[in-house]
Amino acid sequence: MRSEPFERGLLTPVAVGHDALVSDAAVLDALVRAECALVAAYVERGIAPREAGIAVDHAFGLDEKGGSPSATLDVDALVAAAVAGGNPVIPLVGMMTQQVPAAHRAWIHRGATSQDILDTALMTVAQRAVEHVRGSVGHTAQWLRQLALRHADDVAAARTLTQHAVPTTVGARAATWAQGIERAASRLDALFFPAQLGGAGGTLASFVEITGSVDAAAALPAAFARATSLDVPEAPWHVTRWPVTELGDALVQALDALGKFAADVATLSRTEIGEVSEGTGGGSSAMPQKQNPAEAVLIRSAALRAPQLGATLHLAASLAVDERPDGAWHAEWPTLRELLRLALGASWHASSLAAHLRVDAAAAARNAGLTRGRLVSERLRGALVPLIGAERFAELLVGDADLAGVLRALPEDLDVDALLDPSGYVGLAPRFARGTNAVEIGTAAAERADGRRDRTASDANRHGVDE
Amino acid sequence: MRSEPFERGLLTPVAVGHDALVSDAAVLDALVRAECALVAAYVERGIAPREAGIAVDHAFGLDEKGGSPSATLDVDALVAAAVAGGNPVIPLVGMMTQQVPAAHRAWIHRGATSQDILDTALMTVAQRAVEHVRGSVGHTAQWLRQLALRHADDVAAARTLTQHAVPTTVGARAATWAQGIERAASRLDALFFPAQLGGAGGTLASFVEITGSVDAAAALPAAFARATSLDVPEAPWHVTRWPVTELGDALVQALDALGKFAADVATLSRTEIGEVSEGTGGGSSAMPQKQNPAEAVLIRSAALRAPQLGATLHLAASLAVDERPDGAWHAEWPTLRELLRLALGASWHASSLAAHLRVDAAAAARNAGLTRGRLVSERLRGALVPLIGAERFAELLVGDADLAGVLRALPEDLDVDALLDPSGYVGLAPRFARGTNAVEIGTAAAERADGRRDRTASDANRHGVDE
Amino acid sequence: MRSEPFERGLLTPVAVGHDALVSDAAVLDALVRAECALVAAYVERGIAPREAGIAVDHAFGLDEKGGSPSATLDVDALVAAAVAGGNPVIPLVGMMTQQVPAAHRAWIHRGATSQDILDTALMTVAQRAVEHVRGSVGHTAQWLRQLALRHADDVAAARTLTQHAVPTTVGARAATWAQGIERAASRLDALFFPAQLGGAGGTLASFVEITGSVDAAAALPAAFARATSLDVPEAPWHVTRWPVTELGDALVQALDALGKFAADVATLSRTEIGEVSEGTGGGSSAMPQKQNPAEAVLIRSAALRAPQLGATLHLAASLAVDERPDGAWHAEWPTLRELLRLALGASWHASSLAAHLRVDAAAAARNAGLTRGRLVSERLRGALVPLIGAERFAELLVGDADLAGVLRALPEDLDVDALLDPSGYVGLAPRFARGTNAVEIGTAAAERADGRRDRTASDANRHGVDE
Amino acid sequence: MRSEPFERGLLTPVAVGHDALVSDAAVLDALVRAECALVAAYVERGIAPREAGIAVDHAFGLDEKGGSPSATLDVDALVAAAVAGGNPVIPLVGMMTQQVPAAHRAWIHRGATSQDILDTALMTVAQRAVEHVRGSVGHTAQWLRQLALRHADDVAAARTLTQHAVPTTVGARAATWAQGIERAASRLDALFFPAQLGGAGGTLASFVEITGSVDAAAALPAAFARATSLDVPEAPWHVTRWPVTELGDALVQALDALGKFAADVATLSRTEIGEVSEGTGGGSSAMPQKQNPAEAVLIRSAALRAPQLGATLHLAASLAVDERPDGAWHAEWPTLRELLRLALGASWHASSLAAHLRVDAAAAARNAGLTRGRLVSERLRGALVPLIGAERFAELLVGDADLAGVLRALPEDLDVDALLDPSGYVGLAPRFARGTNAVEIGTAAAERADGRRDRTASDANRHGVDE
Repeated sequence: MRSEPFERGLLTPVAVGHDALVSDAAVLDALVRAECALVAAYVERGIAPREAGIAVDHAFGLDEKGGSPSATLDVDALVAAAVAGGNPVIPLVGMMTQQVPAAHRAWIHRGATSQDILDTALMTVAQRAVEHVRGSVGHTAQWLRQLALRHADDVAAARTLTQHAVPTTVGARAATWAQGIERAASRLDALFFPAQLGGAGGTLASFVEITGSVDAAAALPAAFARATSLDVPEAPWHVTRWPVTELGDALVQALDALGKFAADVATLSRTEIGEVSEGTGGGSSAMPQKQNPAEAVLIRSAALRAPQLGATLHLAASLAVDERPDGAWHAEWPTLRELLRLALGASWHASSLAAHLRVDAAAAARNAGLTRGRLVSERLRGALVPLIGAERFAELLVGDADLAGVLRALPEDLDVDALLDPSGYVGLAPRFARGTNAVEIGTAAAERADGRRDRTASDANRHGVDE
Repeated sequence: MRSEPFERGLLTPVAVGHDALVSDAAVLDALVRAECALVAAYVERGIAPREAGIAVDHAFGLDEKGGSPSATLDVDALVAAAVAGGNPVIPLVGMMTQQVPAAHRAWIHRGATSQDILDTALMTVAQRAVEHVRGSVGHTAQWLRQLALRHADDVAAARTLTQHAVPTTVGARAATWAQGIERAASRLDALFFPAQLGGAGGTLASFVEITGSVDAAAALPAAFARATSLDVPEAPWHVTRWPVTELGDALVQALDALGKFAADVATLSRTEIGEVSEGTGGGSSAMPQKQNPAEAVLIRSAALRAPQLGATLHLAASLAVDERPDGAWHAEWPTLRELLRLALGASWHASSLAAHLRVDAAAAARNAGLTRGRLVSERLRGALVPLIGAERFAELLVGDADLAGVLRALPEDLDVDALLDPSGYVGLAPRFARGTNAVEIGTAAAERADGRRDRTASDANRHGVDE
Repeated sequence: MRSEPFERGLLTPVAVGHDALVSDAAVLDALVRAECALVAAYVERGIAPREAGIAVDHAFGLDEKGGSPSATLDVDALVAAAVAGGNPVIPLVGMMTQQVPAAHRAWIHRGATSQDILDTALMTVAQRAVEHVRGSVGHTAQWLRQLALRHADDVAAARTLTQHAVPTTVGARAATWAQGIERAASRLDALFFPAQLGGAGGTLASFVEITGSVDAAAALPAAFARATSLDVPEAPWHVTRWPVTELGDALVQALDALGKFAADVATLSRTEIGEVSEGTGGGSSAMPQKQNPAEAVLIRSAALRAPQLGATLHLAASLAVDERPDGAWHAEWPTLRELLRLALGASWHASSLAAHLRVDAAAAARNAGLTRGRLVSERLRGALVPLIGAERFAELLVGDADLAGVLRALPEDLDVDALLDPSGYVGLAPRFARGTNAVEIGTAAAERADGRRDRTASDANRHGVDE
Repeated sequence: MRSEPFERGLLTPVAVGHDALVSDAAVLDALVRAECALVAAYVERGIAPREAGIAVDHAFGLDEKGGSPSATLDVDALVAAAVAGGNPVIPLVGMMTQQVPAAHRAWIHRGATSQDILDTALMTVAQRAVEHVRGSVGHTAQWLRQLALRHADDVAAARTLTQHAVPTTVGARAATWAQGIERAASRLDALFFPAQLGGAGGTLASFVEITGSVDAAAALPAAFARATSLDVPEAPWHVTRWPVTELGDALVQALDALGKFAADVATLSRTEIGEVSEGTGGGSSAMPQKQNPAEAVLIRSAALRAPQLGATLHLAASLAVDERPDGAWHAEWPTLRELLRLALGASWHASSLAAHLRVDAAAAARNAGLTRGRLVSERLRGALVPLIGAERFAELLVGDADLAGVLRALPEDLDVDALLDPSGYVGLAPRFARGTNAVEIGTAAAERADGRRDRTASDANRHGVDE
């Protein structure tokens, strides 16, 4: 009989429906698979008999399609028994052994330490979860690139320190979101998911005994990695925890990029701004005027938690004393799992948010006009100061009168409509939105080329100092 | 007249003498250089007259060897004036302009926003600091590799959860330290330090006006990057802050790896353990018995702070709303600088620590014998349980009698000396210490090869479950 | 049918068996109780008919002893339905309404906002959990005070920067652990657990409409607090989140104090030190020499995670914009719950650890002698430098010869045994261990009393500078 | 000659001009004062001759008004010399000793350990800094309370999840800011700043030797505390670091509350919202339309960093092993100092921000009308559903037509103006703004009073479910 579980997702709605890959059940399956993979590795290397592998796979249903290999285990009993030794592998081995025919039992967990199995299982779980995160992150970027193309030329106000600064385009903003997310995707792609096999002290001594030679033992980690579909480690990483921290960093980076997107969506959804709205959900029956940015809120709830989870992984890495630390390793497990979970949930919602985001380009244009021409004051400065001087220019912009009238009243002959048109001062925004060859990219980190400075000079007007 | 500075290093001894590259003075120099580089970029692209570049470089001493380009600026006045606008570039431009001949003044900061200059300057500072960190990290790893070679076969106790577990070697432990540090070095090598040039809203609109065309503006960031010796950005990264977080992550990873090394040194230096001692410093005149692991302590003081600094950078990234955020960007500056500083100091001390570390191999061997033979109990189990059964085996190990006597008293014919010799149960530790081809590395993430499991099987003895 | 739950505790062994009070089921019960309490508050204030309160309580089993008020709800459906609106209260109200007779349905959630119910429920859960934590923390301190008394005079080496410094006693160390834990207990005692009732914008406007007057609405929060057994809030705290951060800080402080205790136990358990060992568990069948400090490891796994969870609560507080923030509130829920959970688990294990801790006073005494007399070098300096000068004194201590012999060989007439006896240089350690009136406590923060400096002076010997 | 200092505030504008109390110079002064206070304590207790106290005070200028006691010390030499031993007290003692007449030299640092002096000095620095922070925090709250009174009845939109929800008042919002800040002030008031005096191992053994008795030594910490104007510790707190973490928590709480205020100011300053603007600074010469919330940005730059600094203090507390830890203590110093610094700067700017904040009540009212009556939809639901049914009601609110016209077109006889007037649906907001007796506060944590539920019932209308 199962006891009431600790958590079903009540307080983590961002992940509900998207976190099965990293649930306790998934981790337990991965633990069982890791134990079976060890036997498979022995078989591959000719150390264990083929029958042992077959019997073990059969005992846990790995010889057929489908099903959970841990289905027959009493999870609650296992979890309770894990407390005394501080980790779940110890009771797991006992339970698994009971299910394997006596003739082959000895191969279960043979030579391994619990860290070998737990680290390997967590890497297996992480690898699959990251694949899904990567998929959602990729979809998010694709939707945003489509959005960027569609609105490449739609003018919007660029805001700095909360204030309208200069014009940009809706598409450039979407491309900026995509950029950060694409970079995060490339970091996920580059991750390394090594199997772990080191034995009690990370020396593989037990495997030397079992295989009969140092060379045979040295071949075992690669065989184990193959059997788990993980990367082959160069050496045991029991106390060099960069596979965990690099994974954590990449997940946090993904959540940063998704969080920036969500934060902008939340801001642009404000009742007073109204440039975007979520395409799904978020309504309130009691307050029908509300169009809550519900997915953005969920994504942000994850992004605000992620950096501190990542910090815990780093701390655990720097506190990984001895050949297995006294608490730091244990602090990693739930922390890494929660980061994976947040990334799974937040990336799914980001993909949905990007796919359904409604852009009100007219509202963006309307907002761009709120300062009645002052959104292009930087440009006006360049055009007018040479004609009328800095002092008179400054006077012109005081107050909030419509600049069109103010400029037309000047004696100078100005193409006022062109000057004030924000779409004439969007710079490279449309190119950024279209995303190809936006800026010239020369040789990286090139040396300063003094000899190239002898070009002819254009006339230079004085420009003001911005913030 | 200068006021009393805020900090000279009184409370951060780990960095004293090693942080000049990231001091306020260094940042200020980099700010001035970034402004000059912008003029140089205009000159390179034929937009500004060559004379402007010459005049500006001359005004700040960049046309000659040596000297600080900010030497003539009133730092305290600048710092005080930075408060109103919230960043130091605004007053800097005013001060720099005063020092440039009127004919060329207009080129100073032309078209730029303060974020362009500050981000670029911080990247310049970071790039140089990381070079130094990388050097020290590399030296640390080299010293540790030498140590590993020298002690490749010297037996020591591997400790898990603070307890002696199985034998390893001093050299394997040093190689483990080196591994983590080498990985961190490779991450530092892969960093990208982009210049920043986007103008007020990240659109380069001001540069389009100044250069006269979208194409000419698009060529400017690369020219600016060349003039600063930084990497060319694909696009402005004003609100996609991965260049900052990836840098932060790599620095934290380096501090993790150095921190692990330092934590082990501190542990192994304990009065009761005494397997290593620092080669320099750490003495106490009042308590001459003390050999304080002073450099390890300094390194740890940095490693314990780093993860939370890294978390702040990530938070700032996820809160980078709009086209310039309302506080998150400002939170980055001192945080990134402090991380660079800690990395500079900790890596220097780690290199010194590794270079001078004294290993007492005899103490390590003595400690390995403390459990009177039980350090190889894992091996004994494999050898004895088939002969005497698990129950009798367990009885043998109870208590703390010397196992040599216990085993010799058995009726079975055992090579007791060989069985109990910890150097016979070090597995691959010597190979890890020697560092080449320690384990076989096959194809990464290879598929599980079922067809390869048909080898003959050896006899299998039951092994106990470890923790 | 219930789906597979996310978590049963597989990766958080520290909390297994101790976290039912903060499980999803417990939170859900608290949510239902909060909704019922609102009806009760209306009844108490004479707004709702008594029958409504009876009907609602009856519908959820609150009119009888025992049982979970949420037993009839479909948890998985609720959790899934919570995603769209981003919080579980929205679907909960719908489900609860279905179970209440039509005549009284309107009173469910009437006038409330989901934050009222969720904040109140979390405070209810927290209050009960903190009671338990407080109990375990108190027991831990009591066990440690007994330990301190028992070993008040047993000499041990005080270690600074990992090195033997001067003598102390085992009891003084235990008293130090107790002190930090007692302080944390006092912070838990002082916590404030307010109910939350503000309506959609924190103005109670809906309650003014429902109750018919501002005064009647103003009386409702206190009635609601009474019905929930929570503290009465001075005002809605929907976006002033100190009740959450003060709770978080107190929990982290408790985990700090427990973590310090556990860290010392882990250190003192080291094979080479062996001054303490855990009374239960921690054995390893494969390596019987190991006496793993298993509970200390579990406690540390919690203590290393807690500070970063606390930081997330603070961040959420500072990002609590508007009248309900766009993600920061949501980030609090699982973070606060996890902190409560870690505190529940770690405090339980700390109490067990303290109750069963085995102290090997003989080992402590033996370790105190490891430096062969140098543990009292500070005292020797005071005694000998006046006799033989600093230079000769320094020479005496060089090397590791037994100081007893060295001192006896001196021409000066010394009571060598007394001088070298570490129990003669334990200062106030025994008094600290006995815990009463250890030091004189005068008026706090008293002014510097110059007039009191006219005492006669004793002869002063020069003391060396320590680290 | 002084070298270039590390920092003058270039990258921390929030603190410039407000952090002198926690500068290296201030810490150094406090270190010198702590050493002098130890001599004073010996004099007070009649252990040292009065002349020693006079001589020492004279040597460091403490016998006269004004001047820095560390003025004659070579700071750079001291800082450089601090590296070898890892803390600045070791070289400080050497330098101070040189400046004291030979007859009294022996009293300098006598019996003390460097941690005694450094902890005490940091507490002294913290105490003075917190006084200033407290002052600024108090002023901020007072200005906000005035603002709340002035705008107690000015209608504004309450926003939840970025969307207009229901009406509130400008004054209620200001009162909410004040509340959080006042709570933080009360936590600062309750802080305990203990002196530290324990000697090398926290046992005061050296002081027993020097004073000649356990009782005399036990009296010394209180005398030392009096001489430093700090609180008297119950026992040495060398490894029970709650005085540091409680201080850190209170500072973070203050920064949370100030950060919430600043975050709202930044939001309400948005070009599209414009309900508040900063009274000083923040202008941009290049973009005159900008009214940057410059002080809010500075405050937020501090608030975003603070939680992670607080986390580091907690980590250091939980890692405070042995009788002085190997790095954790050292990690505290710069972290605590930076927190104090951020609090000094942010609270000063918050006080200035609150004093000068300009509220545009007309803009707030205008914004409240943006949803054309829907801001009171919660009220309308209560009034109209009983008349026209839920279905017809829902239809009425669809779209964005002005609800006044829609409601007037209904056949029912409604007082449309009264119904739609947002000032008629502000609930207790004006009372919250006026701040006295806003809600009834009964007995805290009262038991649920079942007997009180028998009041008569009013008619109940069904209310919708909000988010």
